[in-house]
Amino acid sequence: MSKNLPSGPLKIAVLGSSGAVGKELLKLLELRNFPIKELRLLSSRRSAGTYQVWKGKKKLVEEVQSHKFKNIDIVLASAGGSVSRRWRKAINDSGALLIDNSSAFRLDSDVPLVVPEVNPQEVFKHNGVIANPNCTTILLVLALAPLSKFIPIRRVIVSTYQSASGAGAKAMDELEVLTQKFLQGTKSESKVLPYSLAFNLFLHNSPLEDNGYCEEELKMLNETRKILNLPNLLLSATCVRVPVLRAHSESINIEFEEPFPLAKARQIITEASGVQLKEDFINNRFPMPIDVTGEDDIAVGRIRQDISDPKSLELWLCGDQIRKGAALNAVQIAELLVQKP
Amino acid sequence: MSKNLPSGPLKIAVLGSSGAVGKELLKLLELRNFPIKELRLLSSRRSAGTYQVWKGKKKLVEEVQSHKFKNIDIVLASAGGSVSRRWRKAINDSGALLIDNSSAFRLDSDVPLVVPEVNPQEVFKHNGVIANPNCTTILLVLALAPLSKFIPIRRVIVSTYQSASGAGAKAMDELEVLTQKFLQGTKSESKVLPYSLAFNLFLHNSPLEDNGYCEEELKMLNETRKILNLPNLLLSATCVRVPVLRAHSESINIEFEEPFPLAKARQIITEASGVQLKEDFINNRFPMPIDVTGEDDIAVGRIRQDISDPKSLELWLCGDQIRKGAALNAVQIAELLVQKP
Repeated sequence: MSKNLPSGPLKIAVLGSSGAVGKELLKLLELRNFPIKELRLLSSRRSAGTYQVWKGKKKLVEEVQSHKFKNIDIVLASAGGSVSRRWRKAINDSGALLIDNSSAFRLDSDVPLVVPEVNPQEVFKHNGVIANPNCTTILLVLALAPLSKFIPIRRVIVSTYQSASGAGAKAMDELEVLTQKFLQGTKSESKVLPYSLAFNLFLHNSPLEDNGYCEEELKMLNETRKILNLPNLLLSATCVRVPVLRAHSESINIEFEEPFPLAKARQIITEASGVQLKEDFINNRFPMPIDVTGEDDIAVGRIRQDISDPKSLELWLCGDQIRKGAALNAVQIAELLVQKP
Repeated sequence: MSKNLPSGPLKIAVLGSSGAVGKELLKLLELRNFPIKELRLLSSRRSAGTYQVWKGKKKLVEEVQSHKFKNIDIVLASAGGSVSRRWRKAINDSGALLIDNSSAFRLDSDVPLVVPEVNPQEVFKHNGVIANPNCTTILLVLALAPLSKFIPIRRVIVSTYQSASGAGAKAMDELEVLTQKFLQGTKSESKVLPYSLAFNLFLHNSPLEDNGYCEEELKMLNETRKILNLPNLLLSATCVRVPVLRAHSESINIEFEEPFPLAKARQIITEASGVQLKEDFINNRFPMPIDVTGEDDIAVGRIRQDISDPKSLELWLCGDQIRKGAALNAVQIAELLVQKP
């Protein structure tokens, strides 16, 4: 198929439009004046027949079927890996490009894995599918990429503080409901997440590999290697779900090949695209999840020389999981294709 | 002064008895049948004149004054560093031993800093003051100490998930109140903590040093070195306050002098005192704050070989901040002194 899109306004389908990321996709396509000739909302049978508002108008959510991709230019999918796997062929057969939020194709060698601020050139290498990275990875590489261009990175140790939104809108609702019940003194069980997040937290519950890491942690390793094009990068992640609604935080230790001047790191982060340096050492004020909720840019702060190793820096970041961690990144990928290469 | 205490039941004063840790101290002195002849509750003028229940009886809280330490054997203090500094001399002059929960004297060379499971022998070296370590440090060294006896530790990188209780009972109340207001859609400002913890988190707000680390993080470094008697141990901490009520969690990367067999690490943690190995890889079930709330032992899990370094292990732990992180450790120190050396 052609790598480029037709000029002029496009026909876009959003698959999984009623999920947390799907809703954010609709909002961003409107906010950013994405050139749209026709917008089609697709979902499973369960949500089909409902309506969503876009640009002030009610739009019907249709059940996803092969013929619904006819004449569509781009499908923005955020309905999970099995849905993306099921419809990929139908999407590509109809001539549409799939920009996929799931993990289904991210590590496939013929699928670009793109963070537009980091590796925009990759989008044009697609064969019908471009993958959007995992939310924690997107936030991480936004900080790592500009630093690694100045001095190569050898090893990263990261601990995450991941919001409920990463498990979808229902997990966010459950966090609010179970917290309310806790405050009322009522005992209640979680149904969406494996354990209650009400004033609680737990290690990310994605399936465990034999090496003791969970899938989410290995995504951070493998996707970061692919996006940064550093196949030998060393990275160990510990992923934790915390009682926050929709922004993720990460505590990151970065070992470089040689000592990294702290002032230079600050300058690089200040100038980096998609990143705000937010550190006020006088008032002890650094990024918090509520700062970045609904924001495009991630916030980085408390960059400091690791006192345990002269070649390492420590830093802290927060980013909106639904926005830059998912929907915004997907829309930015589409925007790259609309612009002339 | 004598290192040992008189035989038979003791006269105990609790300074700061109405705080979160003070209340837990009273509960534990009762639960553990600590041999008490007389219990005196002391506090600032503000709380003086109120009553607290101990062993089913109402007890008057008295204002702290020098003569209130007369004939007291042990003062258990948890009213902050300035209070401990102010009354240390009066306490020691009256012949009483101060077991202090504050950070005031922890790094003084003549003050033992004790975690009874780790360095019990130190208690007998006191000169009138024994310090209780910082909560995050107590939890950390319970895991590090037994491992470091098998293979020496070179470097530790730790990120914490610290509950509101570390900032006192008022911070716990504030977390509940601000969360309730958030759920009602009401905006409100924090007064106890610098920012609202309601569905939010932030880097620990203790004062920052010139090196960019906060005091809490440097406590973890300096206290761990002292307790483990490893003055050259390398350690970098990132301390984070999370919306959890009273148990802390820690994500810990430990680099040893040589590769550490994983099965041996599990065995050592299983046999370690004060620690429960809690890992169920089949059901993806590891320690959570709510598991350890009100528990004496900390819980350790997801011990794994660091995939980024053959000499490092990753592990996760949770421990009750008020109990083992503060009150229980102080009572255990007192118990060591009551037992014959």
